[in-house]
Amino acid sequence: MNALMTPDELEAALRAVGAARYHDKHPFHVLLHGGKLTVDQVRAWALNRYYYQSRIPLKDAALLARLEDPALRRAWRQRIVDHDGEHEGDGGIERWLRLTDALGFGRDEVAAGRGVLPATRFAVDAYVRFVAEKPLLEAIASSLTEMFAPGIIANRVAGMLANYDFVSKEALAYFDKRLTQAPRDADFALDYVKRNARRPDQQQAVIAALTFKCDVLWAQLDALYLAYVAPGLPAPGAWTP
Amino acid sequence: MNALMTPDELEAALRAVGAARYHDKHPFHVLLHGGKLTVDQVRAWALNRYYYQSRIPLKDAALLARLEDPALRRAWRQRIVDHDGEHEGDGGIERWLRLTDALGFGRDEVAAGRGVLPATRFAVDAYVRFVAEKPLLEAIASSLTEMFAPGIIANRVAGMLANYDFVSKEALAYFDKRLTQAPRDADFALDYVKRNARRPDQQQAVIAALTFKCDVLWAQLDALYLAYVAPGLPAPGAWTP
Repeated sequence: MNALMTPDELEAALRAVGAARYHDKHPFHVLLHGGKLTVDQVRAWALNRYYYQSRIPLKDAALLARLEDPALRRAWRQRIVDHDGEHEGDGGIERWLRLTDALGFGRDEVAAGRGVLPATRFAVDAYVRFVAEKPLLEAIASSLTEMFAPGIIANRVAGMLANYDFVSKEALAYFDKRLTQAPRDADFALDYVKRNARRPDQQQAVIAALTFKCDVLWAQLDALYLAYVAPGLPAPGAWTP
Repeated sequence: MNALMTPDELEAALRAVGAARYHDKHPFHVLLHGGKLTVDQVRAWALNRYYYQSRIPLKDAALLARLEDPALRRAWRQRIVDHDGEHEGDGGIERWLRLTDALGFGRDEVAAGRGVLPATRFAVDAYVRFVAEKPLLEAIASSLTEMFAPGIIANRVAGMLANYDFVSKEALAYFDKRLTQAPRDADFALDYVKRNARRPDQQQAVIAALTFKCDVLWAQLDALYLAYVAPGLPAPGAWTP
């Protein structure tokens, strides 16, 4: 049986999950940030990652629909505002589309998810379902990969701007916003989890939820790597350069 | 808009999906059947595929729970009997465990799914959810990969027995049974689909359901290929030889 951890010990255990499994360690990200990818490989990443982006507000709405406390709902709904914007042309999804614009995709093609790898869909859909169906504590804990996001984002923007002449600072506007949004969201969720995971089984479930989410992110890069880096085996129907 | 097909034209369209996308064309299967895999690569396949096998009766039970016609339920429940057996030590799942036994895994380890690739879970769980949630016609159509199974199974058994001295005919008993079960199941489902897909949109949905299922099978082999063949990148926590 696992011992009860203090809230700070739980936080340390969660940070250890990130250190071992967060997708900044994935070879695809190492290549992406190091400027080692071709424009077509970056395109494949942006196209597939759009599917993930497009599902985040659905995931957050599924969570919102289960929060009985108005204060919690007020805090969580900001995530949906961040992604969907205050008006047409605003928000994280719009900013991601500016990246796919810059990479030469048509918006209809991207929005329809044409050519997205099946493995991307399976992983992302598993995340949405997890949040919709698991106990609230685990659903919230699965968002904690945000704790590790600022480091990877700073790295990504610097690496991509330095190495890819087909990517401009404007095309990466999505990430600028996330540099402030992600820590705010992560602080909130971490605080919630530390206060509410009070039994050993709950603490283990929280760690498992974060591990699951790391798997979701990792699997998306696995699929990109197989299809577009090595051995170069896009699934039937997947986008090809 | 798509034109209405005759039932036989629909069948031909479904067979065309299999010809283009069924996983017998996947490089991992080509290696498996051609005797080109190491024992550890075959182990990884058997371990991950067990997760798929273990979910099939859950998928069929989810479908059974939605069939309002007793005759349909009687026909479909046979699939659950085939997998779970008439008694302890009988059934397809038990026969799959004889294969993992022969490959040196402990049954507890296999049954717990320890080391299964996250991408395997995401793909398989997507299939179970599809069958539980989509219109009945599509749920049934997604089983139609069985139409293409006898060819691959005959090939697999012959290829594995000829090429791997660590695999015996007894360890492959699962596939002997499937040689008769799969065509019976496929005939039933194909007949159902041909009789019930009477509008062009239904026919397209049926084709899409089979395409989806081919993606589910393909993605499982993609994950095995990436992790255990090339470049050899098992996800964190995945089984390693």
